[in-house]
Amino acid sequence: MFKVSVVQFKPELFEIEKNVNKVMKIIEGVDSNFIVFPELAFTGYAFSSKKEVEETYESPLDGIGYAFKTFKEFSKDTGVSVVYGFNEKYEGKYYNSSILIKSDGTYKIYRKTHLFFREKLFFTPGDTGFWVDNINGINVGVAICFDWYFPESFRTLALLGADLILHPANLVLPYCQEANKIRSLENKIYIATSNIWGTQINGEIEYSFTGKSQVTSPDGEVLFRLPEQGDFIQTAEIDERKSQNKRINEYNDLFQDRKPKYYFHS
Amino acid sequence: MFKVSVVQFKPELFEIEKNVNKVMKIIEGVDSNFIVFPELAFTGYAFSSKKEVEETYESPLDGIGYAFKTFKEFSKDTGVSVVYGFNEKYEGKYYNSSILIKSDGTYKIYRKTHLFFREKLFFTPGDTGFWVDNINGINVGVAICFDWYFPESFRTLALLGADLILHPANLVLPYCQEANKIRSLENKIYIATSNIWGTQINGEIEYSFTGKSQVTSPDGEVLFRLPEQGDFIQTAEIDERKSQNKRINEYNDLFQDRKPKYYFHS
Repeated sequence: MFKVSVVQFKPELFEIEKNVNKVMKIIEGVDSNFIVFPELAFTGYAFSSKKEVEETYESPLDGIGYAFKTFKEFSKDTGVSVVYGFNEKYEGKYYNSSILIKSDGTYKIYRKTHLFFREKLFFTPGDTGFWVDNINGINVGVAICFDWYFPESFRTLALLGADLILHPANLVLPYCQEANKIRSLENKIYIATSNIWGTQINGEIEYSFTGKSQVTSPDGEVLFRLPEQGDFIQTAEIDERKSQNKRINEYNDLFQDRKPKYYFHS
Repeated sequence: MFKVSVVQFKPELFEIEKNVNKVMKIIEGVDSNFIVFPELAFTGYAFSSKKEVEETYESPLDGIGYAFKTFKEFSKDTGVSVVYGFNEKYEGKYYNSSILIKSDGTYKIYRKTHLFFREKLFFTPGDTGFWVDNINGINVGVAICFDWYFPESFRTLALLGADLILHPANLVLPYCQEANKIRSLENKIYIATSNIWGTQINGEIEYSFTGKSQVTSPDGEVLFRLPEQGDFIQTAEIDERKSQNKRINEYNDLFQDRKPKYYFHS
């Protein structure tokens, strides 16, 4: 049994240090194994120019980034693994990425595969693909926001063996929270979605986020769902035996019953 | 613009002629292009022995089957295409199949890819794979009941170009009706699910079906949903321009945005 905590908050645009310091208070003393923050958690989401992207990146490989340094320290001190979304600079390109920082200070980066809307103007499509890592006995994978729309994303993570998908998000469409019940059900997997709330305005750019961060279970149930608005942290229990067993009755196993030979593969 | 009608009813177990004659009254005079009946519509579903399967098959290739003869006549007379589920005998094997009968009297068979529960005792897994056929300008595909659970099924039909999935079902789990909103949304496609209602008892075998037959739209909306119980026919309009356009905003096209290179393919 493991615990996953989801943080929902409202960042101030481009105020990285202020936002990080704010959430550090929210997570203080939390009893958990994994903490999930939103997509582009500490920069905010409403980029309107490439210049703004260039001024707010992190580059963990080069040790650059206030959020990276803070959470690396936090993970080492507390033994809690952390995932958060950030604007990553790597080899001269900018990615909408998430970093999973483990308690030993090592980390792994996922770059968003399916870019949404104006992200295509500022970010390079992810080149990491999906991966799964074992952390103290639980297999975790990472997906970012709009990835949920493509059933192949979570299916891929589940087939790679994930028990739990950490899902940083900045949701503006109304569908994901209900859809992830089905994504959990069809893959018999836990999904922890951390979302932003409130509105971000940047010149003519305006986004309203849907809150309702949640954790869904391998039975397709919502273990908890936060309100549409407000800063929160909430924790759910993960029973990895539930996600590792893909059997749904004595005759059907969701993965053994797949028939790849009849599926469209390109 | 096309019309698809869904028939929901309660068959009597193994009373094929009685069941066919009953639904012929339900569909009399309907103004539609496609009529969808449930899975194993006229035999009923609660098979308890191979003997019962051997006694109730149809074999369209050999011209055998009261339902087949009746609906072939109906389609030729009315110009309405019909799909219904049946117990198919083919080359000595029994399949949980659906037949799509077109107004010119030709037909195409789909054999259920993903068998559910005790079906595995009586039926051979389908060997047709998924296919799409163009009928008077609309691309239709067929899936049967439990196929819905596997996102690859409807994804495959959508990528093959289907506008509309005809989905005969005998649903006993509570999930499909809500899940198909997401299946429609993720594929931007229409899905017409025809379900049984009521209970079927056969010795120690007992199934209760969930009714709530429905049509969902490319926007993920329920165009109509029938009650849990009762015989009904209801019709929805299909606007194939909505399913043929996979764009969801000026930057995102659901199919062009797929990244097969990062998906799990076996």
